Amino acid sequence: MNERVYGVDLGGTTVKIGAFDGAGTLVRKWEIPTRSENGGALILEDIAAAVKADAVENEAVIGGIGMGVPGVITPDGDLLPCVNLNGWGGAVGKELSQRCGCPVKMLNDANAATLGELWRGGGMGVKSMVFVTLGTGVGGGIVVDGKLLAGSHGVGGELGHMKIYETGEDVCGCGKRGCLEKYASATALATHAKRALAQTDAPSALRNVVDVTAKDVFDAAKTGDALAVELCEKYADALGRGLAIVACVCDPEAFVLGGGVTKAGDYLLNKVKEAYQRYAFATTAEADLVLAKLGNDAGMYGGAHEIFAELGRADLL
Amino acid sequence: MNERVYGVDLGGTTVKIGAFDGAGTLVRKWEIPTRSENGGALILEDIAAAVKADAVENEAVIGGIGMGVPGVITPDGDLLPCVNLNGWGGAVGKELSQRCGCPVKMLNDANAATLGELWRGGGMGVKSMVFVTLGTGVGGGIVVDGKLLAGSHGVGGELGHMKIYETGEDVCGCGKRGCLEKYASATALATHAKRALAQTDAPSALRNVVDVTAKDVFDAAKTGDALAVELCEKYADALGRGLAIVACVCDPEAFVLGGGVTKAGDYLLNKVKEAYQRYAFATTAEADLVLAKLGNDAGMYGGAHEIFAELGRADLL
Repeated sequence: MNERVYGVDLGGTTVKIGAFDGAGTLVRKWEIPTRSENGGALILEDIAAAVKADAVENEAVIGGIGMGVPGVITPDGDLLPCVNLNGWGGAVGKELSQRCGCPVKMLNDANAATLGELWRGGGMGVKSMVFVTLGTGVGGGIVVDGKLLAGSHGVGGELGHMKIYETGEDVCGCGKRGCLEKYASATALATHAKRALAQTDAPSALRNVVDVTAKDVFDAAKTGDALAVELCEKYADALGRGLAIVACVCDPEAFVLGGGVTKAGDYLLNKVKEAYQRYAFATTAEADLVLAKLGNDAGMYGGAHEIFAELGRADLL
Repeated sequence: MNERVYGVDLGGTTVKIGAFDGAGTLVRKWEIPTRSENGGALILEDIAAAVKADAVENEAVIGGIGMGVPGVITPDGDLLPCVNLNGWGGAVGKELSQRCGCPVKMLNDANAATLGELWRGGGMGVKSMVFVTLGTGVGGGIVVDGKLLAGSHGVGGELGHMKIYETGEDVCGCGKRGCLEKYASATALATHAKRALAQTDAPSALRNVVDVTAKDVFDAAKTGDALAVELCEKYADALGRGLAIVACVCDPEAFVLGGGVTKAGDYLLNKVKEAYQRYAFATTAEADLVLAKLGNDAGMYGGAHEIFAELGRADLL
């Protein structure tokens, strides 16, 4: 009987599940809704049912489950109550293990995505990398010598809150100013665009767009729209500055950029590379900057990586 | 016959040597001059002679030597030519091993000092720490889960070159502006003091000092000299800002501050703690800030730590 290992990425609205065969290949992926009502009472039941049904259908044994969750895992393996899941938490890994009769490993979702990109994404082949997610906020995950740098308070890789500027127009969610997140998130780029449109008379195609987004700004910049180009340059400059600072601390082989903003592709990447070179110290300038490759699948790959590691499958990692 | 292990800290002018007994206790320390002439041709001969003489005198076997050097060690264990030692370098670890008939481990001197402080200094008992040296420049070393974070280009912990400000009056040795080193080194504090004295009419006891040093500034600040206090506040603010950024990356349990500036003691430490709290993100604010304890002995302790580790003496580490 063959064996399947499952990588699960639990989000606020959907659960992404990937089934991996014994060779570490993703053989099926699908989604189920996250039923977070009633403190998430149905979450584990739903996940267990989905995994078991897949195993039965494919006449497979469930070898293990690795699951990324939007919260903090304690050193004991428990999950602190998740804000995005109505306080769901506790010994959920153990419970899932009992429900499915297999080993379960839990990890933070940002860390899961980081391991996924390390294993099968933009970071394949490197030993140390920094994964930066550029979306609603700016998050990150750091790998040193193949291992996650979780941090002594579970806050390792919280790159969005590095204060890269002395001050700034926008107060960050953390209560401070100058945080990278206020310059390098999709939200920040949209905010800066709206401000520039309101405060200047500069002509721009963006003036015809209702509720400008980061995507609108990059799209306009690619057509040569001067205001949009300037906004993208500032965006990339802030991010390049931030990455150069990170490199002085942990000196990675590669930076892997993920999150919604990276849909802007090579246009973004090239501008960030230029900015990084402006600020990078000495040989840290040799670090590769690459785009993430797994998109929304990174978390399930990371979950699978974690459980394969737990199962001693170093041959796959 | 008893065994001694030697921790060696090779500097540009002196070699500091520590003899450790089998229980990991420093039983003797002494210095010899560094003869760096002729490309350092005599360096190993001198060190070998000093170590052998100590062993003979104490009827001890040389168990091993761990040596911190002011340069970059390649993954093969060779030393790239040291700028401060007239280009001395190469397979010096192997040669010392042959001369003394014992295992030899080499490591970068900043990393040696970091391991020393982790093992027997300000970082005793922690698993992850950031060591920051505040001297002529600003250096650092990072420990994650008990291991040095060397970095993929050997530049991990080069904290002096984090760009904490957007610009700055002084160009750093790295060619850029805004580097932490231009605000948090002893040199920087002296420079800022001289500039303030030249550019303002503020009354200050520092006006009576020829060639003001960082020590002069701290001494004056402790007596309440307003200009000196302001300079120290700015110094601490820059350092606190820098440490808060580092914490977003690697989230250490503790920061250990060493180097000449820390002779200012608790006065400095308290100001840096205040500044750190102003900038620290979330739970990284819980990190301890402590002064280094080993002073100039940190490197020899770190060398001993490294060779005890090589010898499998986990019981001591």
